[in-house]
Amino acid sequence: MRILITNDDGVTSIGLLTLAKVLCKEHNVLVVAPESEQSATGHAITVRRPIWVKKVEVVEDFPVYATTGTPADCVKIGVEVLAQKAVDLIISGINFGHNLGTDVIYSGTVSGALEGALLGIPALAVSAPAEKDYNYYYAALFIDTFIRDFDFDILEQFTALNMNFPSGSVRGWKAAKQSTRRYADRFEARIDPSGNTYYWMYGDVVEDDPIDDCDYNVIKKGYVSVTPITVFMNNEKVLMKLKEVQNEENKTSWRSSSEKESKRD
Amino acid sequence: MRILITNDDGVTSIGLLTLAKVLCKEHNVLVVAPESEQSATGHAITVRRPIWVKKVEVVEDFPVYATTGTPADCVKIGVEVLAQKAVDLIISGINFGHNLGTDVIYSGTVSGALEGALLGIPALAVSAPAEKDYNYYYAALFIDTFIRDFDFDILEQFTALNMNFPSGSVRGWKAAKQSTRRYADRFEARIDPSGNTYYWMYGDVVEDDPIDDCDYNVIKKGYVSVTPITVFMNNEKVLMKLKEVQNEENKTSWRSSSEKESKRD
Repeated sequence: MRILITNDDGVTSIGLLTLAKVLCKEHNVLVVAPESEQSATGHAITVRRPIWVKKVEVVEDFPVYATTGTPADCVKIGVEVLAQKAVDLIISGINFGHNLGTDVIYSGTVSGALEGALLGIPALAVSAPAEKDYNYYYAALFIDTFIRDFDFDILEQFTALNMNFPSGSVRGWKAAKQSTRRYADRFEARIDPSGNTYYWMYGDVVEDDPIDDCDYNVIKKGYVSVTPITVFMNNEKVLMKLKEVQNEENKTSWRSSSEKESKRD
Repeated sequence: MRILITNDDGVTSIGLLTLAKVLCKEHNVLVVAPESEQSATGHAITVRRPIWVKKVEVVEDFPVYATTGTPADCVKIGVEVLAQKAVDLIISGINFGHNLGTDVIYSGTVSGALEGALLGIPALAVSAPAEKDYNYYYAALFIDTFIRDFDFDILEQFTALNMNFPSGSVRGWKAAKQSTRRYADRFEARIDPSGNTYYWMYGDVVEDDPIDDCDYNVIKKGYVSVTPITVFMNNEKVLMKLKEVQNEENKTSWRSSSEKESKRD
């Protein structure tokens, strides 16, 4: 396969390079990643300024490009410009730190995979525990086997996979639902030498999801969690409720703003 | 109501200030917004560096704070620190430019509202056409009426509303589904004075959604589109398919990575 690898930890990340080294033995690997760390960038893209792209001589086995863009930019420019669309699979990672629950909306790693899904290319985001001695080599071997065995045709359009590795050894992989895992934010105020107030933001994890097969429960049991995620954030149930009230609202509300200028009607 | 207003165009944006001026007549308004433009930041948050917060004397009718953070940061710090949780509604906007279809995953405006949903507070993202002479005042009046009439109790937890205004006058509002609207990216390569290659990214809109009540079709008919969006990106259908293959995969695949180190079993 022709595999484009990106991440949000930057082009020199050990998780990314270990994955690329393992996969390049059987696959055609191209690395396009941010030149510096982009954690918690969300699904940002670079607009109103250009993106620099530089070939980096990190290793000899596969081409590596560093960009001034985000993970989503790297996927766009990697697929469209550098690979001229010749990409069969996109992998974003291996990230230092999990992307579970509501973290996926903040995650640069996940956004790299979602960008692939938007381009119609099978895509996988991969995250490992934030452990300094984490064995990325075994995770990379697991991914190598997974992508060989997995039938990416079962994914729908605009859908990517979000994979998280457990701590320690791996018992296998399980389909997992994105959980409600989130943070209770805390702020610490400080004063800088010029007298201005600034805040450090940190937080405590809240894990209160009752579902047994949600992402964090799956990895706690020693399995790799695999969560199918989509770019569509529709809440269908609320949409049905809104349709019930929309007409009534229209009868009474719209005049307040549109009766004063009636270009259209 | 106690209303926190943020945006991604920055604290001096006319869309934000017009909305705040209209709403402060009947409501307790607090503005917390980025000090500079943050468009296409996605749902970024600021980690590993602190956030500066400064009170700005823009107008006298309501307090305005500018921060070095993203829209999501502004909501977190606005709710937790500045308002001490005393917020009944969060509005992000009025943005210069629509946030339709798959754009919602790139949108700083939408992320401000989703952050509210994560905090359990009713939240609304509002975007207007990218028109220089757009009448934000009428849009603000429409929003004023909408939030007075709308029963935010019908929203579920972790769900916010994404509202987009049409060009010209408004016929009312309609519940709308997030569409597949996206961009076909194009890149223009240039060489900087130092000989480095950089790329301008731009794109052509792709509108191919067959659904009549999707966001862009609703605004084309002159209605304000109101789309309930959630932080959960699960693709439930693909999740069911994954559950069917997960066990088979486990039988064959897991040994390749975990038999070499068996700490857990």
